[in-house]
Amino acid sequence: MSGLIGAIEAGGTKFVCAVGTGPDDLRRDVRFPTGEPGPTIGRAITFFRTAVEELGPLAAVGIGSFGPLDVRTDSPTRGCITSTPKPGWSGTPFAGRVQAALQVPVAFDTDVNAAALGEWRWGAGRGLDAVAYVTVGTGIGGGMVYGGRPLHGMLHPELGHLPVPRDPEADSFEGVCPFHGDCLEGLASGPALEARWGTPAPALPPEHAAWELEAGYLALGCLSIALTLSPQRIVLGGGVMEQRHLFPLVRRRFEQALGGYLPDTPAADADTYIVPTGLGNRSGLLGALTLGLQAITTI
Amino acid sequence: MSGLIGAIEAGGTKFVCAVGTGPDDLRRDVRFPTGEPGPTIGRAITFFRTAVEELGPLAAVGIGSFGPLDVRTDSPTRGCITSTPKPGWSGTPFAGRVQAALQVPVAFDTDVNAAALGEWRWGAGRGLDAVAYVTVGTGIGGGMVYGGRPLHGMLHPELGHLPVPRDPEADSFEGVCPFHGDCLEGLASGPALEARWGTPAPALPPEHAAWELEAGYLALGCLSIALTLSPQRIVLGGGVMEQRHLFPLVRRRFEQALGGYLPDTPAADADTYIVPTGLGNRSGLLGALTLGLQAITTI
Repeated sequence: MSGLIGAIEAGGTKFVCAVGTGPDDLRRDVRFPTGEPGPTIGRAITFFRTAVEELGPLAAVGIGSFGPLDVRTDSPTRGCITSTPKPGWSGTPFAGRVQAALQVPVAFDTDVNAAALGEWRWGAGRGLDAVAYVTVGTGIGGGMVYGGRPLHGMLHPELGHLPVPRDPEADSFEGVCPFHGDCLEGLASGPALEARWGTPAPALPPEHAAWELEAGYLALGCLSIALTLSPQRIVLGGGVMEQRHLFPLVRRRFEQALGGYLPDTPAADADTYIVPTGLGNRSGLLGALTLGLQAITTI
Repeated sequence: MSGLIGAIEAGGTKFVCAVGTGPDDLRRDVRFPTGEPGPTIGRAITFFRTAVEELGPLAAVGIGSFGPLDVRTDSPTRGCITSTPKPGWSGTPFAGRVQAALQVPVAFDTDVNAAALGEWRWGAGRGLDAVAYVTVGTGIGGGMVYGGRPLHGMLHPELGHLPVPRDPEADSFEGVCPFHGDCLEGLASGPALEARWGTPAPALPPEHAAWELEAGYLALGCLSIALTLSPQRIVLGGGVMEQRHLFPLVRRRFEQALGGYLPDTPAADADTYIVPTGLGNRSGLLGALTLGLQAITTI
């Protein structure tokens, strides 16, 4: 067996596919826009078939996909994308199509559970047992890994829609989430920043009042995560977090919100508790690769 | 081996100990107030020694204890109560003392992780994989079980201190939590109800405005739990939840707060998603018994 793994990071706007064995050994990769499910998945399959001709057989494929995703082990629609607003994708048997075409084991999870797994295996969560990953970008989402396994309960975590306290006197913005208005995603995603300030997030200067407010909401989201999922570390990724000046602000607000609680835990040191990705924008792709590795080995 | 298990539910105000094999076979039990650690743990040990003389040897002991508790598998202080405000108990090697005295395997976890385990094994979470338990009483706390194993991350869940949105215009009460003021426990525990209304919770009539407000906060807590831990069911216990009229109110508020999100999941049917305990006030004790059973078998 070659040990070569195929990885797919399937996002709502783009697909990234790669073939390799780890972060320092990605031998082929490709990215293309997410279109209709048939041609898009077909393009990924073609990429892998070409790679197989050039590099040899794949041992497995791992997929980290936008969701919601059916990850229930006993479900007849396991591996399908479920009810997504993304046109055409609801009910798509994503993992099944890849498996049928390539005839190798296919493992899959949400893009954010995959990213948490990638950070646990190769990145900022390496060596830890319980690692949370949160992406703050077009949306807010998150994944959780315990002992190298992504969390599955009735579904997977849906961290973007966490309720967070908002003081209407201090902040009259009612949020952009179509379901909840002022949930975490409604208040702190990239589109929320832009709707609130009339300026895209990357154009807001570091001293802008936007960031203090943003940090406050992200800190409350991190607090809810710390008190429920109990991660040893929270890794923050996504486009908005590329504003690195946000990290110290989030950490200070987290400390304030924690209020001295959990004194003997990793959460008590916000500087090491809330950290950027160790894998840059490759957390999801390398997490998908890890899913593939886990399909054939126990790591 | 007799299969007899010793169980300790160690609460901040009282200890309950029992010997048996399951909910329909508790052969001895005792309850006494929680005093100084030495004499209190000694009294539990004496109870078990007497039971052994009468019933035969114990196969294991399970402990569900007030916390915070060191549950880290690699910790030199594993099995100890950590920094608790309860006088004398900080640093008490609870599990170790019981193990040394009785010379049987001793399993332990938080009282609320134990209660979640009890409800999963014998109660309202039977047959499910992912079960959350929340107690609403003198404090608010919660536990989570996946596949029959309580959740341990950097610590255990600390659900009572979840931040929840409060509209200061609609509710000017600032909460009673010494750490956070208006966290879930600060707003919705028994003492919070009493401080807010000047009347102990059991004396507030069902039509009192207190309950609608209480239900709103508990629903937000349940929402945060659903979106993070992703349980298939949330079991609500504790003294405040003995007001059974609270359940329909919490469920309606949960539906409102969920806002149509997670349509294809158990959370979409609040009537079966948010339920009372199946074990009455014995969730913790029977969870401790389950911990003991798990120490000697795989269930």
